[in-house]
Amino acid sequence: VIRDAILEALASDHSLAGRHALVTAGPTVEPLDPVRFLSNHSSGKQGYAIAAALAARGAKVTLISGPVTLSVPAGVVCVKVQTAREMLGVCEAALPAEIAVCTAAVSDWRAKAAAQGKIKKTSEGPPVLELVENPDILATLCRLANRPKLIVGFAAETDDVLDNAVAKRQRKGCDWLVANDVRRGVFGADRNLVSLITETGIETWPEMDKSQVAGKLAQRISDVFVSSIP
Amino acid sequence: VIRDAILEALASDHSLAGRHALVTAGPTVEPLDPVRFLSNHSSGKQGYAIAAALAARGAKVTLISGPVTLSVPAGVVCVKVQTAREMLGVCEAALPAEIAVCTAAVSDWRAKAAAQGKIKKTSEGPPVLELVENPDILATLCRLANRPKLIVGFAAETDDVLDNAVAKRQRKGCDWLVANDVRRGVFGADRNLVSLITETGIETWPEMDKSQVAGKLAQRISDVFVSSIP
Repeated sequence: VIRDAILEALASDHSLAGRHALVTAGPTVEPLDPVRFLSNHSSGKQGYAIAAALAARGAKVTLISGPVTLSVPAGVVCVKVQTAREMLGVCEAALPAEIAVCTAAVSDWRAKAAAQGKIKKTSEGPPVLELVENPDILATLCRLANRPKLIVGFAAETDDVLDNAVAKRQRKGCDWLVANDVRRGVFGADRNLVSLITETGIETWPEMDKSQVAGKLAQRISDVFVSSIP
Repeated sequence: VIRDAILEALASDHSLAGRHALVTAGPTVEPLDPVRFLSNHSSGKQGYAIAAALAARGAKVTLISGPVTLSVPAGVVCVKVQTAREMLGVCEAALPAEIAVCTAAVSDWRAKAAAQGKIKKTSEGPPVLELVENPDILATLCRLANRPKLIVGFAAETDDVLDNAVAKRQRKGCDWLVANDVRRGVFGADRNLVSLITETGIETWPEMDKSQVAGKLAQRISDVFVSSIP
């Protein structure tokens, strides 16, 4: 990621200069008690690479990241969070922005009430985990009055990838949706095979490094802003 | 950890030469579906430090570790696992051993059946997570016919730390139990305040680095074996 950031920086592309981009990345971690949590296998690699690629094009980038072990790309401001609610709060506080790229794998659910003390193993068997729905960060951003002009969602799917992704773009109200098939073991991997779903159609990109997916997406984003000078 | 391993190695202590020690470390990760999991905040630092300290005293060490980002100490054989069931299987396969130090924060529960595809968010609200109890690795090792001579358990407690730990030593059937109070933010920290519970009493050690806790525990372990040449 560092090497890519340097290569990108050397390109001296300022097509997104003056634009503010939010990028969410990584998993969220939802506590069940002080020790246990619910989370997911997002590595944050794709999101960090997109933050780097947007910064390399001159954008001011705020990266809102769940707990991952990646280095923050050069020139990017990173805010670390744990839960979906924290992530949404930091996103809203970071607005206004022209661009939002929501790559984070936000936990759909959290424990209804995280226990204050460690839940003990008893002879009565496992506890019942009562879950409640987390806020939907992508959908919430899309419906805000000060909505970023271009909002890109990500969909990790294991079944009916494109159908689910097309439906998700509509349901969330985002401009573009990047679908990836996580059956192929994309979590933590360095390569990715994605489809970009826009209002006008579906493009499936060849398999490439996550940094290349990031570069291609950043290029597409900068095309939108170059062709619509404010 | 590396620095400590080198310092320990320089001590040229061979008091555990010829002994085989199992050390479990880190969290376990229990899948709910291909994307989501249940886990805990164990960093693995204490267990990796103990593996290093035992190896430095000449023991042959097998470290059975959940997913953590630590480097494997010099001279230690490490087997990485995800779930409690995998961890138990690797422990049993690694026997016989004279010593077992179970520092891993093993998930008490797992999903009754991990979903094959990603669980979808539906309008019907959050799914019910049916949990079942995981095997108890510490208690299982203690009851085996070829049980290690000295088995040390760890207890992360948030309430009534010593009372819970004394009861846990009895219940599990381990020789020693190291209790630590995880309310103090020990997960991921470099320092630790522990009490060693044996058949004869409770010793509370002063707060010290995890590497020092490891060294002191390894010293106590080697005292047992030096005083009982087979």
